[in-house]
Amino acid sequence: MSLIVQKFGGTSVGSIERIRAVAARAVAAQQAGHQVVVTVSAMAGETNRLVALVEALSSRYNKREYDVVVAAGEQVSIGLLAIAIEAMGFRARSYLGWQVRFLTDSVYSKARIQEVEGFRIREDLEQGYIVIIAGFQGVDEAGNVTTLGRGGSDTSAVALAAALQADYCDIYTDVDGVYTSDPRIVSSARRLARISYDEMLEMASLGAKVLQTRSVELAKKYKVPLRVLSSLEEGEGTLLTEEDELMEKVVVSAITHNRDEAKITVLGVPDRPGVAATIFGALAEATINVDMIIQNVSASGETDLTFTVPRGDYQAAMDVLAVPVKQIGAKELRGNRAIAKVSAVGVGMRSHTGVAQRMFKALAADGINIQMISTSEIKISVILDEKYMELAVRTLHDAFELDKDAGDRVIA
Amino acid sequence: MSLIVQKFGGTSVGSIERIRAVAARAVAAQQAGHQVVVTVSAMAGETNRLVALVEALSSRYNKREYDVVVAAGEQVSIGLLAIAIEAMGFRARSYLGWQVRFLTDSVYSKARIQEVEGFRIREDLEQGYIVIIAGFQGVDEAGNVTTLGRGGSDTSAVALAAALQADYCDIYTDVDGVYTSDPRIVSSARRLARISYDEMLEMASLGAKVLQTRSVELAKKYKVPLRVLSSLEEGEGTLLTEEDELMEKVVVSAITHNRDEAKITVLGVPDRPGVAATIFGALAEATINVDMIIQNVSASGETDLTFTVPRGDYQAAMDVLAVPVKQIGAKELRGNRAIAKVSAVGVGMRSHTGVAQRMFKALAADGINIQMISTSEIKISVILDEKYMELAVRTLHDAFELDKDAGDRVIA
Repeated sequence: MSLIVQKFGGTSVGSIERIRAVAARAVAAQQAGHQVVVTVSAMAGETNRLVALVEALSSRYNKREYDVVVAAGEQVSIGLLAIAIEAMGFRARSYLGWQVRFLTDSVYSKARIQEVEGFRIREDLEQGYIVIIAGFQGVDEAGNVTTLGRGGSDTSAVALAAALQADYCDIYTDVDGVYTSDPRIVSSARRLARISYDEMLEMASLGAKVLQTRSVELAKKYKVPLRVLSSLEEGEGTLLTEEDELMEKVVVSAITHNRDEAKITVLGVPDRPGVAATIFGALAEATINVDMIIQNVSASGETDLTFTVPRGDYQAAMDVLAVPVKQIGAKELRGNRAIAKVSAVGVGMRSHTGVAQRMFKALAADGINIQMISTSEIKISVILDEKYMELAVRTLHDAFELDKDAGDRVIA
Repeated sequence: MSLIVQKFGGTSVGSIERIRAVAARAVAAQQAGHQVVVTVSAMAGETNRLVALVEALSSRYNKREYDVVVAAGEQVSIGLLAIAIEAMGFRARSYLGWQVRFLTDSVYSKARIQEVEGFRIREDLEQGYIVIIAGFQGVDEAGNVTTLGRGGSDTSAVALAAALQADYCDIYTDVDGVYTSDPRIVSSARRLARISYDEMLEMASLGAKVLQTRSVELAKKYKVPLRVLSSLEEGEGTLLTEEDELMEKVVVSAITHNRDEAKITVLGVPDRPGVAATIFGALAEATINVDMIIQNVSASGETDLTFTVPRGDYQAAMDVLAVPVKQIGAKELRGNRAIAKVSAVGVGMRSHTGVAQRMFKALAADGINIQMISTSEIKISVILDEKYMELAVRTLHDAFELDKDAGDRVIA
């Protein structure tokens, strides 16, 4: 008998009808011979409603109390799901974070899970219960309610699967798996049957927002087999797992894109120590995240410094930098919102050379200019003019033959 | 320094503005030099919303899970109130039933409090916190969430006041105290400065729905000084306390009324054992509560049996009784919805005679016919035609001089 942890997001439990559908899915898994644990988020809209109440009272609210308020959302959905399963004639029992218990640190509103006790759940499973666990919440050592931050229910599910040594952790979403690229841009994009944790981490942080990054890190750490499945239709989904031979034979697994960044360039920066610290210190103080940074070596004693920030922080970044740019004696501050990032991700890059060249060549053949380049062990990202984004994604999808089955495009 | 437990109902925390007003009241009490613990209900309408979700899923829902769902309502209001107090620059900390903890039995949806641990609250009070406690909820020995049933927040507050040996338990309501009669009927009705627990128990069960009966029982048991105060205006309210000399000198403290009952008479009942058991057994099976019962001794071998049921159950009771009435060979089943109950309540009755006569005489003088009579140690109730109810209440209020201050109407 295998043990499956299922996770359903807020949309999946957003109405009485949908809660019934989730109940039916959990029951079907049990009827198929599995032990079933279900983790759910708050009903769609509920967390936003609770946060709005908090913010109506105070903009600088007490975070401990914020957690008390928002954790109530999952409390409602787990009870309702248990009632729906019982109404179908099966046995279900719900638990809150503190009951099972999800021990976290005390960093309210973005606590990290430290330990999950599984024994009470195991007992119930042995007795034939479908066990339902509130996602997103935990309890600290002192017995205070904590929450894990947005998307935390994914992490709850993975932590639970790790603690229970589940055979699968199934994350139900509104997509039927992870794709080689965004199907809205590339019509020939294919669902990936398997993908490595590392690739998924690069994709998640690059804007393919299927899973919370922390949940993938945790799945990797505890080797939890994670499946991304559709809550709307049956299907194989995508299995996140450790790298295997087949994956390593394929150089590129997916092409991702992100148009949520903006580019800022400081021109004519004096080439002396402390200059970069001044610029990025000012941004850090304004809590603006910097993604890519490029600085060329200088021959003239002057250099240009280019970096990207979230597009929503663009104007704030330009304002914040006005003074330090003058202080360091730079010539000019220039910005550009109309850029996009396109990335090729694949664990195969570790053992294959020539991937970057192939990428640049394909883009050049279509007349697409590359403004910035950044690479990691399993990823190459380029910044380009936003208007070329779709074209670049399609071009690269073709260039790495992602429309073909992995077996057919193995490159020696 | 005195310790005060304040309790606010759902209407008092029904909006952001009202939560701010409750926060201000708690802060004012602390500023006046008291240690302050606040118990709150769910925001007005919230419990009904949650119950509706449960009932949409199942009419015979799992009660353990029902408690999980509805307990979420108080979780939201305590967090919001703490945030409101912190936003005013004072320190507040909220606790759920399981955190402090309110240990109850496991009778889900109407659990009874067995014990309240006070040490964590005491620690916080010593440190200057205003402590906020979720009303209506607790936890059983096994760590399951429980709720106390409608109105349970009153009981939470009293149990807390008993555990903390509070100097006062202040119940804030939408009325400014307990009155000698309903001011909508008797314009000269006066607020009672003091009333005994026993009188309040008779009044509550008679339809003066200011406090949950269980909370008054608990206050009596632990001698908690309970004040009923208005959440809308300043005032002395009414103090519930043990009987004292002054109270005992007054024969009648209040005239109450109730028009939520209906009368049923079974005529020509054969006078033999088991007949009453058949009739009331049928009603009990249909979970219809019977209030007053009157059966006269019979000379003829036949008797008439009269009793009252909640008016909403009248038709069901008539339907349920059709068969057993035939079985026992009774002559006829008659009912009357248009009745009312009027009662005189007072601990002074214990030591005074002639109260009943005075009551009947006053009603007779106004031509009001009495249909049924029922008495207890501190209460006399009569059933009469509904159309005479207001007149009867006014007549009795006058007859016992309730418009006068207690000191002025002492009767030897």
